[in-house]
Amino acid sequence: MAKEAAMSRRLYRFGLLTLFVAWISAAVAQTDPLPSWNDGPAKQAIIAFVTDTTRAGSPDFIPEPERIATFDNDGTLWIEQPAYVQLAFALDRIKALAPQHPEWKDEQPFKAVLEGDMAALAASGEHGAVAILAATHAGMTNEEFRKIVKEWLAAAKHPRFDRRYDELVYQPMLEVLAFMRANGFKTFIVSGGGAEFMRAFAEERYGIPPEQIVGSRIVTKFERRNGQPSLFRLPRVDFVDDGPGKPVGIEQQIGRRPVAAFGNSDGDLEMLQWTTETGNRRLGVIVHHTDGDREYAYDRGPIFGGLDKALEAAALDRWIVVDMKRDWKTVFPPEKR
Amino acid sequence: MAKEAAMSRRLYRFGLLTLFVAWISAAVAQTDPLPSWNDGPAKQAIIAFVTDTTRAGSPDFIPEPERIATFDNDGTLWIEQPAYVQLAFALDRIKALAPQHPEWKDEQPFKAVLEGDMAALAASGEHGAVAILAATHAGMTNEEFRKIVKEWLAAAKHPRFDRRYDELVYQPMLEVLAFMRANGFKTFIVSGGGAEFMRAFAEERYGIPPEQIVGSRIVTKFERRNGQPSLFRLPRVDFVDDGPGKPVGIEQQIGRRPVAAFGNSDGDLEMLQWTTETGNRRLGVIVHHTDGDREYAYDRGPIFGGLDKALEAAALDRWIVVDMKRDWKTVFPPEKR
Repeated sequence: MAKEAAMSRRLYRFGLLTLFVAWISAAVAQTDPLPSWNDGPAKQAIIAFVTDTTRAGSPDFIPEPERIATFDNDGTLWIEQPAYVQLAFALDRIKALAPQHPEWKDEQPFKAVLEGDMAALAASGEHGAVAILAATHAGMTNEEFRKIVKEWLAAAKHPRFDRRYDELVYQPMLEVLAFMRANGFKTFIVSGGGAEFMRAFAEERYGIPPEQIVGSRIVTKFERRNGQPSLFRLPRVDFVDDGPGKPVGIEQQIGRRPVAAFGNSDGDLEMLQWTTETGNRRLGVIVHHTDGDREYAYDRGPIFGGLDKALEAAALDRWIVVDMKRDWKTVFPPEKR
Repeated sequence: MAKEAAMSRRLYRFGLLTLFVAWISAAVAQTDPLPSWNDGPAKQAIIAFVTDTTRAGSPDFIPEPERIATFDNDGTLWIEQPAYVQLAFALDRIKALAPQHPEWKDEQPFKAVLEGDMAALAASGEHGAVAILAATHAGMTNEEFRKIVKEWLAAAKHPRFDRRYDELVYQPMLEVLAFMRANGFKTFIVSGGGAEFMRAFAEERYGIPPEQIVGSRIVTKFERRNGQPSLFRLPRVDFVDDGPGKPVGIEQQIGRRPVAAFGNSDGDLEMLQWTTETGNRRLGVIVHHTDGDREYAYDRGPIFGGLDKALEAAALDRWIVVDMKRDWKTVFPPEKR
């Protein structure tokens, strides 16, 4: 009996210890705001910035209305290889519209798209790009365009990962968005991509509402169509939100200088400079794509966006360079079953 | 003794009654979200809209992210007579800069401004307007411009009311802004005025942050000045946020169709149509300036903005026309002592 009692006590103590260990792990997991990030300088720097700028009495304290954080989209929040998603959309859209345009079989750049001749497409240059933009992004209302994008996103699959494009968002960055919002930061997308294209999915995927999306624009015109007021998309570029255009777009739409900015290419250089070169505690982050196994390893975007200048400036301006391979425990969210 | 006791009881009952009356008045005052509005159809319609679209289970329920309310500024949130405030700023600014520009004494439109010759100023037409815009709104960074506007607002006085311009905001509209925000609406300014001009005071006066201000814009350019990244204002109009430009500006910046819109002139016509012509419960409001004693009585803005089309459309689209004289108990907030 005494032996059994001792055993029972040991088991009880062991059980209690196990329970404590489990509790502590759970508590740590709960308080880790970035569970998909490996411990390291990038994760530490992001957490330290948020902690130091939101703690009352901190010398780096930033009042809540000024907590504006801006995020590039392509290559920063979601995948941009082997092609920008919006380009994949445009090429698919040409194919979908081709039956209504028999003349495209003999007309560049459409011929190149329909035959999958990427060299000929590239050779069509700016004229080709404008023709594709006009055929796929204009000639309808904004509402119609967003519906087309939504339907495409629901059907299209990434060629390598065989998943919806809007599932190929970066899990570690979703955690950064949530973590910053939980600490009173207002998160904005500031992307070279089209604002209306991103508005078709950003609220659902990133929790970022349409009014917090800054992007490139084509001209829209207010007019009545079938008696209804509508905004009709014209085949003319209005604003390119890239490079030096990013601070301009930020000022147009947000009207306040960000205190944190995230990018992944030279197209984000000026946004990062505008955000961080103030003399105050600021956060600049560059996502460096170093993981060919789990995603892609590259220093240039599919068309635009080298990273030379931005990496050079990163050292100078003390931006955080995220090494995807080293810093990210996982890349994409788990697949929905 | 009996007499005294009866008196005391009477006094007690009277006191209690008085107290009750005071309590009830206080409770009513507390629950009246629009105390500066007289009871009447306008006040009732605004309260009914907010109540009906925010009550769970209501057939007119609007989910919180979609509760976008847009407000014109000049003549809707603050005074616009005898001149648009931004025009008063520009003319004062010309006078302040004149010592550095001796040539202005002989050069139109500056000569007209310096001599107070409004006929000559009007005769200078578009050329004159652009010259004044360039001299007063461009050639500096956005930050410098906002500082200049703030300093002017702190010093300038309205010619009739002898108060700071940003004290001549409409108290009843401040209450509408607060009431709607308390019910989950996000309030935006959508004005023909300059976005950067409004950003100099709107957060403090209206509680509307810079990122919720849509306005007209001049071109800005990102460049380094004295080594610092800056946004420099160029003397070129980029976007006019008026008339059919308002739905365009709303879509560019908010990316979501409003569910309530407030204006006071034909410049707000398309915004009101875009907001209300959806087949769903929506709110369109026109502030009609009918009170020459307490403010001004007019059907045209100082330069733009008749009200004929908007009043006609108001009947058709069932917008609420606020009769300032009838509907507003007070016009301006009490003076700060």
